[in-house]
Amino acid sequence: MRVYLAGPDVFLPDPLARAAALKQICARHGLIGISPLDPLDGGDLPHWQTLPEAFRIARRNEAHINSCAALIANLTPFRGPSADAGTVFELGFMRALGRPVCGWTNTAAPFIARTRTFCATPAGTHDAEGMLLEDFPGLADNLMIDAAIAASGGTLVIRDLPRAEAWQDLAAFETCVAELGRRR
Amino acid sequence: MRVYLAGPDVFLPDPLARAAALKQICARHGLIGISPLDPLDGGDLPHWQTLPEAFRIARRNEAHINSCAALIANLTPFRGPSADAGTVFELGFMRALGRPVCGWTNTAAPFIARTRTFCATPAGTHDAEGMLLEDFPGLADNLMIDAAIAASGGTLVIRDLPRAEAWQDLAAFETCVAELGRRR
Repeated sequence: MRVYLAGPDVFLPDPLARAAALKQICARHGLIGISPLDPLDGGDLPHWQTLPEAFRIARRNEAHINSCAALIANLTPFRGPSADAGTVFELGFMRALGRPVCGWTNTAAPFIARTRTFCATPAGTHDAEGMLLEDFPGLADNLMIDAAIAASGGTLVIRDLPRAEAWQDLAAFETCVAELGRRR
Repeated sequence: MRVYLAGPDVFLPDPLARAAALKQICARHGLIGISPLDPLDGGDLPHWQTLPEAFRIARRNEAHINSCAALIANLTPFRGPSADAGTVFELGFMRALGRPVCGWTNTAAPFIARTRTFCATPAGTHDAEGMLLEDFPGLADNLMIDAAIAASGGTLVIRDLPRAEAWQDLAAFETCVAELGRRR
């Protein structure tokens, strides 16, 4: 079973080593991990040649997602209270395909707490621009994300690690992989 | 033609008035704007009753998107360098359905400039955690977002407004609507 590995892991200092580590964990549980950095089977489509590099990457990622039976997203908060935007896009994309989407995060503080910290309003209901803070008990991120994982039959695994370890530790990821692996 | 109106506009102080304003602009161009705040035609599905409120909202939004022929997303940066996470999820969802996705933003600074400002690294290539900054010329947000709009045949409209007006001015939105309206 092919599983797309969404996440800002591609921005880590050695993204190919990270992809290899994620794929190795997948293999241990009988899954084939597909990284956004993988070339496409059969290569890029000929008419992508005229596209800018960024758009070719996106076409490749969409094709990878289409080719996978499930998606696992690294939802560890990235430059703000929410997960990485590209990761969230890909989660929504796979959700629309009706296949299982799973998520993992190494930050246990709920979304409302992280948002309040980000907005520097410890008990506030609105940010400095007067916009409402999304406040539903226990959600890990924007409700579309948590709900998609639940509705798709996927797993959300939350660990609480010091920020310095948030991009290293793969135990939460492996829990997602193991759960998907048991379904094969 | 039904068009889903994705955006953090639902967090504005009077979200129903905002939804009405967006719908009125759609109507002027012969489109039916569908707000995330709209009840579903036919109501919620019976088995949603046991879901928490947040998950019922998400199911409703997914059903709304499925019922629409196109999506227009308010991509004005929201609590970080990127657009609102819920909006990005919905954009990815509609992109997977293969229908046109459009975006508008009232912030003209490109994604790389906003990310550098956010990370307080004026000319940097990496953030304080050692993670790469996505640096492709001219992109308005994460490459999945810009590329999805282009690949779907949608429009991306960028205006440059002072932040204080970013949540009020609807000229960029109307440009998206007018463009979709001409295609009917």
